[in-house]
Amino acid sequence: MRNKQILAIPGPTPVPPEARLAMARPMINHRGSEYTAMQREIVEGLQYAFQPGGDVLIFPASGTGGLEAAVVNTLSPGDRVLSGSIGAFGDRFADIAEAHGAIVDRIPTEWGSALDPEVLRARLAEDRDHTIKAVLLTHNETSTGVTNDIRALAEVIRDHGALVLVDSISGLLAADLQTDAWGLDVVVAGSQKAFMIPPGMTFVSVSERAWAAHRNARMPRYYFDFTAMKKYMEKGQTPYTPAVSLLYGLQTTLRMLREEGLPECFARHARLGAAVRAGAQALGLRLLADPRYASPAVTSIYAPEGIDPKQLRQVVRERYGVVLAGGQGKLADRIFRIGHLGYVGENDIIAVMSALERGLGDLGVRITPGAGIAATQQALAA
Amino acid sequence: MRNKQILAIPGPTPVPPEARLAMARPMINHRGSEYTAMQREIVEGLQYAFQPGGDVLIFPASGTGGLEAAVVNTLSPGDRVLSGSIGAFGDRFADIAEAHGAIVDRIPTEWGSALDPEVLRARLAEDRDHTIKAVLLTHNETSTGVTNDIRALAEVIRDHGALVLVDSISGLLAADLQTDAWGLDVVVAGSQKAFMIPPGMTFVSVSERAWAAHRNARMPRYYFDFTAMKKYMEKGQTPYTPAVSLLYGLQTTLRMLREEGLPECFARHARLGAAVRAGAQALGLRLLADPRYASPAVTSIYAPEGIDPKQLRQVVRERYGVVLAGGQGKLADRIFRIGHLGYVGENDIIAVMSALERGLGDLGVRITPGAGIAATQQALAA
Repeated sequence: MRNKQILAIPGPTPVPPEARLAMARPMINHRGSEYTAMQREIVEGLQYAFQPGGDVLIFPASGTGGLEAAVVNTLSPGDRVLSGSIGAFGDRFADIAEAHGAIVDRIPTEWGSALDPEVLRARLAEDRDHTIKAVLLTHNETSTGVTNDIRALAEVIRDHGALVLVDSISGLLAADLQTDAWGLDVVVAGSQKAFMIPPGMTFVSVSERAWAAHRNARMPRYYFDFTAMKKYMEKGQTPYTPAVSLLYGLQTTLRMLREEGLPECFARHARLGAAVRAGAQALGLRLLADPRYASPAVTSIYAPEGIDPKQLRQVVRERYGVVLAGGQGKLADRIFRIGHLGYVGENDIIAVMSALERGLGDLGVRITPGAGIAATQQALAA
Repeated sequence: MRNKQILAIPGPTPVPPEARLAMARPMINHRGSEYTAMQREIVEGLQYAFQPGGDVLIFPASGTGGLEAAVVNTLSPGDRVLSGSIGAFGDRFADIAEAHGAIVDRIPTEWGSALDPEVLRARLAEDRDHTIKAVLLTHNETSTGVTNDIRALAEVIRDHGALVLVDSISGLLAADLQTDAWGLDVVVAGSQKAFMIPPGMTFVSVSERAWAAHRNARMPRYYFDFTAMKKYMEKGQTPYTPAVSLLYGLQTTLRMLREEGLPECFARHARLGAAVRAGAQALGLRLLADPRYASPAVTSIYAPEGIDPKQLRQVVRERYGVVLAGGQGKLADRIFRIGHLGYVGENDIIAVMSALERGLGDLGVRITPGAGIAATQQALAA
């Protein structure tokens, strides 16, 4: 029974059995009509998920590849870019732009906080000549468990005129994001988060404004080139071999998503997030994220004084079968994270909270047994 | 029964049931010990497949991404590169180098021919100042069905001193390739060919000389950066989320490969290729590839006079359940291709040849029924 595990990390997330079996189907010709029909259905499903997006392109790559695609397709070497990073993945987005020759300004933000639209407005107001070409935003920062108010941030950027490039890898489907309505130029999502399939694909939405920027963007690119991908996707194919088995899974989970409905999907994630926070706090644990911006996808929790979060995770995993995530970067030795996005239901959260209670008890932390679960149940019922 | 198909295209190739079921396993934490153990086993298996390679890196991407990785990690903008392209995929490799700022010279070669080592030697001899930094080679050209003599070509290049960058996406495991012994600096393979798993991963071997070039290579890169990938792989992880389900499949097929043994695997592919060629010729069909370099992975066949290869493929697929590949680029209207690499056995080849016979007959081509099968059987027995 050592494999009867609950995976409570913010990606890869659990894959529904229907999708796992769909991915076991035999291969097909990616230049044939059967493939084309599947891809067209998937693109419609992605449009539903992006509410809707511009052109939604599918690349066989991890989410980091999608971030690279956003950068190299819209910018030229030497372009000024403003990073609104609020954590490790926002830093990565900025690093990618820098690696490809952009000049990146970074707004300092405390990890655990959201990006303040007024701080962003002030920063953009300094750019009187409008030399900033793009602002890099993170929808949901996986390393801290903070969800930015993308709608408000994008509005500020639209007033300035820069492109709005959004990492929504762990955000899309867990929290509301209206790509077109909010004026988001490039939005990047990933397969292994709330899309409920394994890692290996990234979905990238491209607005009209992003296409206009693309036509003048001179960063070198081939694999992630938007033009080639769009040209082939219009005829129901891709320029090179697509990740066929992952697409089988995606076709299945997109159907599940339509069945659940987007509002219900967002509500479920919000409820699970609130329940985790309530449970953790009832156990006397301190949360990292600003409560106003607490993520519906992942919760970062400080280990109690004197407790090594790595050891806590080990006990919880080995004794109680629940896999928690560690902290990243400068938080590695201070926090642990609970993922609650994708194919996650209420009973998963109950089990996670129970394992956490038991693990803390085993390590000698004084808690009231059942207190976490009681608060979790109460929050779920709310 | 319309889905009882035989997929006879040069990728994606059929996936063995063991691997399909392995890929249906639940997700695990890619930062945990279970993942690390799996990755270490897979790296050992890849070393066996590359006989052995330098550092073999695994990227979640299609093979085209691996080609981009080979280029951007070893070259700088403005570097001179010699392309030894013999078909559509060789052209793509050259295009990738050009897109990233290399100055590419191309050796003209007739499609269907291999690259002549003496032609390459003469071309490199003109480069008295040794300004050519790298030569791009294709091990097995999927668009034509020609396998280059990489050993002889690499020897010529080593005499000159340029880097040897090899696209072996459809070659590795189908034909002998000894990465270290033959002095190949970067070798790129793909998951969806003879590795017998779905598309979405590329494997890239990096030699000591390639690492030395890498340290001075200034083409911008992030997603495909060798240094970051190596650093993480040394601790049994990857810099960003790996394609977990595809790795499950790869673990399984690498075990199958060890069981079969490399020599037996090469012999099987050679035998299947010879059988396809014998059968096609017995049906009066003309082959594209120079017979001295005919591929053990894929065979390109001219459609008979007056027959549209697209129509032939359609009849063969719809009536007889066998999926053949079309021609690419300038050969699209003249040839069709039979893939016989990966999880392919003798009975698959018999069925393919039978469908081809029947399809030709249906279109009014005068053939001797059974002649193709008889020749195929004879070749298989040889």
